[in-house]
Amino acid sequence: MSQGTPAGPSTPDDGSSSGPAAPVSAVRWDGTAPVILDQRRLPHEVVEWRLDTVAAVVEAIQTLAVRGAPAIGVTGAYGMVVSLDERRAAELDTAAVQALIAGLAVTIGEARPTAVNLSAAVRRVVAATAGAADGAAARAAALRNAIEQHDEDAAACTAMGQHGRIALAGARRILTHCNTGRLATAGDGTALGVIYAMGAAGEIDEVIACEARPLLQGGRLTAWELGRSGLPHRLIVDGAAGAAMQAGMVDAVIVGCDRVAANGDTANKIGTYNLAVLAGRHGIPFWIAGPRSTFDPHTPDGAAIVIEERSPAEVRGYRDIVWAPEGVRAWNPAFDVTPAELITGFVTDAGILRAPFGPAIAAALAGNGTGEGA
Amino acid sequence: MSQGTPAGPSTPDDGSSSGPAAPVSAVRWDGTAPVILDQRRLPHEVVEWRLDTVAAVVEAIQTLAVRGAPAIGVTGAYGMVVSLDERRAAELDTAAVQALIAGLAVTIGEARPTAVNLSAAVRRVVAATAGAADGAAARAAALRNAIEQHDEDAAACTAMGQHGRIALAGARRILTHCNTGRLATAGDGTALGVIYAMGAAGEIDEVIACEARPLLQGGRLTAWELGRSGLPHRLIVDGAAGAAMQAGMVDAVIVGCDRVAANGDTANKIGTYNLAVLAGRHGIPFWIAGPRSTFDPHTPDGAAIVIEERSPAEVRGYRDIVWAPEGVRAWNPAFDVTPAELITGFVTDAGILRAPFGPAIAAALAGNGTGEGA
Repeated sequence: MSQGTPAGPSTPDDGSSSGPAAPVSAVRWDGTAPVILDQRRLPHEVVEWRLDTVAAVVEAIQTLAVRGAPAIGVTGAYGMVVSLDERRAAELDTAAVQALIAGLAVTIGEARPTAVNLSAAVRRVVAATAGAADGAAARAAALRNAIEQHDEDAAACTAMGQHGRIALAGARRILTHCNTGRLATAGDGTALGVIYAMGAAGEIDEVIACEARPLLQGGRLTAWELGRSGLPHRLIVDGAAGAAMQAGMVDAVIVGCDRVAANGDTANKIGTYNLAVLAGRHGIPFWIAGPRSTFDPHTPDGAAIVIEERSPAEVRGYRDIVWAPEGVRAWNPAFDVTPAELITGFVTDAGILRAPFGPAIAAALAGNGTGEGA
Repeated sequence: MSQGTPAGPSTPDDGSSSGPAAPVSAVRWDGTAPVILDQRRLPHEVVEWRLDTVAAVVEAIQTLAVRGAPAIGVTGAYGMVVSLDERRAAELDTAAVQALIAGLAVTIGEARPTAVNLSAAVRRVVAATAGAADGAAARAAALRNAIEQHDEDAAACTAMGQHGRIALAGARRILTHCNTGRLATAGDGTALGVIYAMGAAGEIDEVIACEARPLLQGGRLTAWELGRSGLPHRLIVDGAAGAAMQAGMVDAVIVGCDRVAANGDTANKIGTYNLAVLAGRHGIPFWIAGPRSTFDPHTPDGAAIVIEERSPAEVRGYRDIVWAPEGVRAWNPAFDVTPAELITGFVTDAGILRAPFGPAIAAALAGNGTGEGA
């Protein structure tokens, strides 16, 4: 494994602290290269990885050292810049640098083919460099664009946090799923960002985090983030969500989204639909948080969303440990689809969207600000 | 660890075969001692453990080498016999053997305090030896009683299988939870016993097994049993159950039970309630299988059932591997309660019970045979 250059003091905290610690950044620009928090080693080791070559950028994305669609997108954008430096782009003429950029866009943009944010982020960098007079100008334009994308994502998270805090007012015990926070975005997060905004205002009594089998992003990453945040929290297995609602432990549910169809049907991490059905039975508000970029007006409804099926090995165990019989067949959909009828509302960077979702989503994407608080 | 005496050829199959293999027995009497299948080592190793001392019996029960309330009960009953032999009971007079039996009943009966079947099974052995003329007669009476309990449990499983097969007729794709089969009972099982009876009649197209976090009895044990049975099956994470129902993969759900209240409210492995709510939404029949001994007329309803909360360590990881942050708080109820209104019916050894469950349960326990097929 190429590890790039160690990024200075890389273990500021052992991760087991229950109080607030230094802010978590999935990805940051250190002035010359993107530095990620290596999520493969969390929660037991807090180690940064400075990605100073195109090979390191691709490896970090492919091995899930950096994950979460927005965080991957920003890493890819910064990765374009560091790769231009590695190839001495500033010394190239316009034609040579454009050829280089086109090649890097393929190498980095396809590191994870299914991550729409990654290819979109890389395309934005390419577009930003299109009119550059020479290599140095192209490199400068690429960096400006990457920083702009980073700032935009952070701002979207902040906006979701503020809109969501108002929408969920009065709910002090929040259940969430998977990881949608500072490790998944270039800001405070989507669903978890809302929880952080509520927590900063003193409005959180407890966060209940579902572990999110099979890849355990809740048990590993959300539990770690929440420990750093200082917010009171407990971890549960996914099967205990209904019992938690029965026990009166949950005032609201908020989760993220991977794709929202034009009618509001929402694909998100497997297990989300279970939570929506349970919340519905218990009369508990069920919220989805996501930036407008996650809404897909070209997908009419949930039936049109193709669900990625992942390796049975993920169900048979976890990483190196296999507890199921060798070779047992498994069904491992990465996502499920929650029908719009089970969703209380969407927390977006453009405000809150409520039913009927079709017109509300169309208006938010058109940018005419009919969402509450937009 | 005391391993007792190896029980002859102990690895008849490596467990990875997908075809039928030798019948699985959680516990059997080899003529002089109980022999269990060591479930701690499944599915990767199929190893029997001959329990030829009271220490081995207690250790096997305490370490979950044998588990499942009926299987533990039968092991405890046989354990009384082998312990009498270890202490040379046949050479003792009546007073001495009664004192010995009383002491063993405490040692074995309290190996797992919460396992009602264990203490009940040991009490039955004690009662059977009450009138014995001498040590030899007491030992003989104990063995007769243990074999009788074993036969009763096997017969109850067979009866549930036949009643359940008729009740579930037409459902060919069955979802189940946790482990309720040959590893949990001294027969074919409760819920899984029904599935085996359907399978033997050629009525099963596929069994979907939920893994049952945190202890993964579905992923480890049910998947292994199903592999030995030759029935087509797939494993899923608990969070994928809703998606499986959405995808039209499930005709019926059948699960076991740990305690059924007088009104039909049912405590079972954590995650059962989620499945019941999801099945209700999808109009999928939701069945509970259990012998009459699991019905508790002294518990009026689910609110009166105390739920055991187990160690947070089980949520933080699995066995030696810990993937969550060290010391993170977790909520780990072992069971949840499914309200009677979500239950299609009960498959018991005395026939099928349908709503209204209060009178149906009372009649079944009174033994007047008003259950269908009783």
